[in-house]
Amino acid sequence: MIPTITVFERSPDGGRGLARDMRVRWALEEVGQPYEVRPVSFKAMKEGAHLALHPFGQIPTYEEGDLALFESGAIVLHIAERHAGLLPDDATARARAITWMFAAVTTMEPPIVEREIAVLLERDESWHAQRLPLVEGRIRHRLGELSARLGDADWLDGAFSAGDLLMVSVLLRLKRSGLLEEYPNLVAYVARGEARPAYRRAFAAQLALFTAGSTG
Amino acid sequence: MIPTITVFERSPDGGRGLARDMRVRWALEEVGQPYEVRPVSFKAMKEGAHLALHPFGQIPTYEEGDLALFESGAIVLHIAERHAGLLPDDATARARAITWMFAAVTTMEPPIVEREIAVLLERDESWHAQRLPLVEGRIRHRLGELSARLGDADWLDGAFSAGDLLMVSVLLRLKRSGLLEEYPNLVAYVARGEARPAYRRAFAAQLALFTAGSTG
Repeated sequence: MIPTITVFERSPDGGRGLARDMRVRWALEEVGQPYEVRPVSFKAMKEGAHLALHPFGQIPTYEEGDLALFESGAIVLHIAERHAGLLPDDATARARAITWMFAAVTTMEPPIVEREIAVLLERDESWHAQRLPLVEGRIRHRLGELSARLGDADWLDGAFSAGDLLMVSVLLRLKRSGLLEEYPNLVAYVARGEARPAYRRAFAAQLALFTAGSTG
Repeated sequence: MIPTITVFERSPDGGRGLARDMRVRWALEEVGQPYEVRPVSFKAMKEGAHLALHPFGQIPTYEEGDLALFESGAIVLHIAERHAGLLPDDATARARAITWMFAAVTTMEPPIVEREIAVLLERDESWHAQRLPLVEGRIRHRLGELSARLGDADWLDGAFSAGDLLMVSVLLRLKRSGLLEEYPNLVAYVARGEARPAYRRAFAAQLALFTAGSTG
């Protein structure tokens, strides 16, 4: 059965691959699972049919027969559990890889998103220039801890896993901030993720949707 | 094998049950798994032995034989996968429950934590009073969506699951904010969680550590 995912009809990032459907595309490419894409407009995203799939009115969603999921972390875990290639076979190593999945989306991503909110929504507020360094300090704190743990390893815990897939995806959001560059081993880690053939196929697929000028 | 979890030696919340070990205690109580507790000081939390367990220097961690995990979401999922009672048997319903686990810690919790950061760390900044309503607006937005989805159901998707356990835990952080009270069905939902015998046992256990004046 070919799953269907929803994506932005118009990408807020112009196809830079930062929308969360990219994580799901990448996971599907890693395991060799073909998929279909249904673009959703910003308006439709907040309406009944899509809200029935995603109570918070976002993308991506994942539909496969009578299964409908939202939350990119949960979707990537679902894919990783049903196909080989994204989680170790050993139960202990598998639990650790899932721990890194949660670490990516609950410990590392929130301060990064908070910076984006500050830049996008609070840019014109009187406090923006003064507050931004505080927010960036919180990101640096986490990056420093992650950099220390990664050391000179290729991936966070043994072979590439769904934990790395989500962590690289989260760190990619920092690309234009200049913050990642302070941690050379994290820059190299992200580059290793981007160099994976599955990442490149997924990136090309999301970009094609926008360069083709498609509106779904 | 009896697992060991780490907890705050001194609770920042004075035993109100908001530290993230509470989620793990609650999950262990729901499935009837005894556990041991190792309190960690704020100083030790940032030092080598604990950082080896938890790269971000936080609690809780979970040790069980040669398995060592961090991230409360991942720990609750590990417990839920190895014991009956926290995830449905049906694969489709199980994937949906895991989706709610991710929704709790990645969609609902970050704006709530952002409010706590604002109140704790930016209280004396010139912008605090002006910015707080913006932060609270983001929380209300998510609460409204969650309230609409829950409707008059007891739990988010069928029987009580690890998804409800995490969502109730996250919403409990709002208790003193006054925000939850705007959504009576969410107030009742949280109260149903708190009324569960497993929740009450877990709450009493974390409180006992602090009222006993223990420093580990």
